[in-house]
Amino acid sequence: METWDAVRARRNIRTYRPEPLETAHLERILEAGRRAPSSRNEQRWDFVAVTDRERLAALSRVWRGAAHIANAAAAIALVVSDEPDRHMWGSIQYDLGQTAMLMMVTAADLGIGAGHAHVEDKELIREILDLPAGRTCTHMIGLGVPGDRPLRPIENPARRPFNEVVHRERW
Amino acid sequence: METWDAVRARRNIRTYRPEPLETAHLERILEAGRRAPSSRNEQRWDFVAVTDRERLAALSRVWRGAAHIANAAAAIALVVSDEPDRHMWGSIQYDLGQTAMLMMVTAADLGIGAGHAHVEDKELIREILDLPAGRTCTHMIGLGVPGDRPLRPIENPARRPFNEVVHRERW
Repeated sequence: METWDAVRARRNIRTYRPEPLETAHLERILEAGRRAPSSRNEQRWDFVAVTDRERLAALSRVWRGAAHIANAAAAIALVVSDEPDRHMWGSIQYDLGQTAMLMMVTAADLGIGAGHAHVEDKELIREILDLPAGRTCTHMIGLGVPGDRPLRPIENPARRPFNEVVHRERW
Repeated sequence: METWDAVRARRNIRTYRPEPLETAHLERILEAGRRAPSSRNEQRWDFVAVTDRERLAALSRVWRGAAHIANAAAAIALVVSDEPDRHMWGSIQYDLGQTAMLMMVTAADLGIGAGHAHVEDKELIREILDLPAGRTCTHMIGLGVPGDRPLRPIENPARRPFNEVVHRERW
């Protein structure tokens, strides 16, 4: 798909068709994430790719808004160091947002929908994914072929108006 | 450009050719950022698009690593609320990373290079961009046609190995 179409077609997908992802597609999405830029190229992230149905069901219980993970074809858990300093934490999270978005655009290009889930119960996800001390998971991305309608460029997304968001030369 | 080519061609560009960006290209990059997803669709960001040469030169002085902004065809300053809470700050920064990456992939698709600059001197950028109280700018993105070689898909990016970053089913 043309990049500009993928950028405009990407939307938050939380219902999925039951079939698994093609292995090559999941690998490409993970590879896109690996390629993301980061502060000093430090790549302060690890990805746990989950396709096992029981484990996906377990992951869906880490937050009330994570139910869609149970029905996803796959989920990618984004794992980082549990950094206490606000500034450092913000820097890690900025980079994590970059890698998540590269994965999501790459998914959209393949016709695969992606839907974020926040992680509320950090101890539960630590158990499910066997995370070592000092690491935490703040976000998961559910993946699957959209259960409703295919991804198509959206003309008018539900966003703040362009001229409100964009300032020229100064605030 | 095909999405997968744009994802693989994107790299950090800090030297730019002198010509300005086409207006339609800058607008498209900003529109990509506007479309980014965010926590509860709160869109906790504003973008200041700068093309004035004197202002770009001023912006290049907000950090020792921001010199490339002086020679960029344009810069986009990412403005957010200066949130003191670590958790909220991390959430804002994650979303900001998502919007930055959508802009950068969209730029790469147009053959336009993008290079991050961190913002160290928050008071200086407040003056330059006339930011209101309570807002801050943490990142700028320099934009321009690459001064060295065009953007082409990179076979082996300088990143941690795939099998180190990617875990299967559990850590």
